[in-house]
Amino acid sequence: MTVPSFTVECRHASGARLGRLETAHGPVDTPAFMPVATHGAVRGLTPEQLSRIGATMVLSNAYHLAQRPGVDVIEALGGLHGLLAWPGPILTDSGGYQVFSLEGLIRIDDGGIDYRSHLDGRRGRFTPEDIVAVQERLGVDVAMCLDECVPADASRARVVEATERTTGWARRSRGAQSRRDMALFGIVQGGFDEGLRARSADDLTTIDFDGYAVGGLSVGESPERTAAVAGHVVALLPAARPRYLMGMGTPRDLLTFATMGYDLFDCVLPTRNGRNGMLFTREGKVMIRNARYARDCRPVDEHCSCYTCATYTRGVLRHLAMSKEMLGAQLASLHNLHFYTTLMTEIRAALREGTFPERARVAAGAWA
Amino acid sequence: MTVPSFTVECRHASGARLGRLETAHGPVDTPAFMPVATHGAVRGLTPEQLSRIGATMVLSNAYHLAQRPGVDVIEALGGLHGLLAWPGPILTDSGGYQVFSLEGLIRIDDGGIDYRSHLDGRRGRFTPEDIVAVQERLGVDVAMCLDECVPADASRARVVEATERTTGWARRSRGAQSRRDMALFGIVQGGFDEGLRARSADDLTTIDFDGYAVGGLSVGESPERTAAVAGHVVALLPAARPRYLMGMGTPRDLLTFATMGYDLFDCVLPTRNGRNGMLFTREGKVMIRNARYARDCRPVDEHCSCYTCATYTRGVLRHLAMSKEMLGAQLASLHNLHFYTTLMTEIRAALREGTFPERARVAAGAWA
Repeated sequence: MTVPSFTVECRHASGARLGRLETAHGPVDTPAFMPVATHGAVRGLTPEQLSRIGATMVLSNAYHLAQRPGVDVIEALGGLHGLLAWPGPILTDSGGYQVFSLEGLIRIDDGGIDYRSHLDGRRGRFTPEDIVAVQERLGVDVAMCLDECVPADASRARVVEATERTTGWARRSRGAQSRRDMALFGIVQGGFDEGLRARSADDLTTIDFDGYAVGGLSVGESPERTAAVAGHVVALLPAARPRYLMGMGTPRDLLTFATMGYDLFDCVLPTRNGRNGMLFTREGKVMIRNARYARDCRPVDEHCSCYTCATYTRGVLRHLAMSKEMLGAQLASLHNLHFYTTLMTEIRAALREGTFPERARVAAGAWA
Repeated sequence: MTVPSFTVECRHASGARLGRLETAHGPVDTPAFMPVATHGAVRGLTPEQLSRIGATMVLSNAYHLAQRPGVDVIEALGGLHGLLAWPGPILTDSGGYQVFSLEGLIRIDDGGIDYRSHLDGRRGRFTPEDIVAVQERLGVDVAMCLDECVPADASRARVVEATERTTGWARRSRGAQSRRDMALFGIVQGGFDEGLRARSADDLTTIDFDGYAVGGLSVGESPERTAAVAGHVVALLPAARPRYLMGMGTPRDLLTFATMGYDLFDCVLPTRNGRNGMLFTREGKVMIRNARYARDCRPVDEHCSCYTCATYTRGVLRHLAMSKEMLGAQLASLHNLHFYTTLMTEIRAALREGTFPERARVAAGAWA
């Protein structure tokens, strides 16, 4: 079997599909949610815990890791698989988005990005070719091209420029690739303009990537605009290749966009919200610090089989959150990630057995 | 079998003994180290992880828990065993030491302590009888009497007063006890005065407790003075009852004081130092943030079988510490507690098989 490769196992009338992405570090059954390990760890979870909740592919960030601990160090420590202590598949984002969002951007031109490190203020420059080389040296299974993101309120001229630059960078990235056991995904940009999105998708498809990501969404726009663009673009992407909707989202988003035919998702919500005392359940959000839970002897979610729900009551989790005990953040993150991965497992089961979307909706509960 | 009960299984010429404390929640093989769960959790560790590293009895704090979340709430959540999600034995300290060390003390008299809550500044008062009642309601297996601690530089008159008060409180505590399935330990005080220590030990022995703790050490004195008092007092305590040396210590301390005949220990060092990047190994301290470990592919301790050492290299642990990733604190705490519990397991094995102290010294390595 050639890796990486992607197979669509079955399709639903809605557009949703059951697939499998084969990588050198094992398969990823899709639709899949990728826990986020930006700096080299999923916040608060051991790899053993990640594996137990059914995570397959983990997402990390090439830009952040190149800043700290640095590519040389990661190579010495066994590549990114060694750093994450994760034997399974790993996808890295290029870090273009982080440079923008961390305000590390100094200057951008067609050649690349001048940035200022968010860690020590040092200036640096990287090109699309650099970012491919970094991801190859990290030994990742799926790499992303460097792209240019613009805010939701950017002028049309600015969006046009960024989209064209992203396409040019994508072509250079594909040309710079030397490792063929690493999948390289192009990133569709184009703001909220259907024509620009179509042009971007068409140009990237012509370059021919191993998969296609959709970026530049959830940058401040309404959920309706997000869904409109996501729905427009998905129809333009090759059916035989995996589709990754970047940075999404709530459980409702996962169900909505998996239904459209997206295959891969990532989001910091389960861990970040978990640390802040928000737990995802079939009944909706549980804000665990609420005084009503002080003496509540029920698990967070009675339908849940995770370690947190098998071991802890709401009352205890509230106490841990109020006391700012690290364990409270860990247990909440574990539960939330389990909720996300279980939702994806249920979506896949529903597609496999022909009960989509009903079975998936039951798993999503109040989020459906 | 009556619980609680204590059996000395064998003795070594040094004074060290192998014992077993039976409780309603299972046995504690001694000498034993108790991980510290002051506020309702061992910092960063799940009960499953605690169980896997061989922890048997966990220590918590009656005063802190009575402040937050409160005894009523803990009762509603299944007692302290429910709060800690720990099915095994639990010992609570009374909290006298915490009132002193948190500067919450307002006034002390023979009747009890007026204090100001460190959480919300509210004033309150508790008596020795209150503290016994709290521990009974928490459902703990081993409770401590309220005692009065004084600093190492206290005047003789002050030490005499505190020691006499501690004895009076111990008598009242024993009288207030209603649950006979809970062991109650008296706490020997007396500062650094051999006569006062002897008097305290004698008075408490006359009251007849289920076990005896030695308090008022590690309050700023030299290690030699600590050892002198600990060695003096241990000979005065009934051989048939468990002996608990409070708040100790380094691995070297555990070996030293187990050799004297102490049975129970607790200390925040393994978790606190772990959070700060200090790891205990047979070769001594590893300050994991040190740049020399950046590319070090060895485990923290090549002799160690814990999850951290089985899964992570020093280089990765350094990166997690430098990045302030919560997981780094968790993994370091797990390793350190494993080092402590394993040392105690080796001490017990050495006593059982007649290789004490040699086998124990191997386990302690540079700490012996």
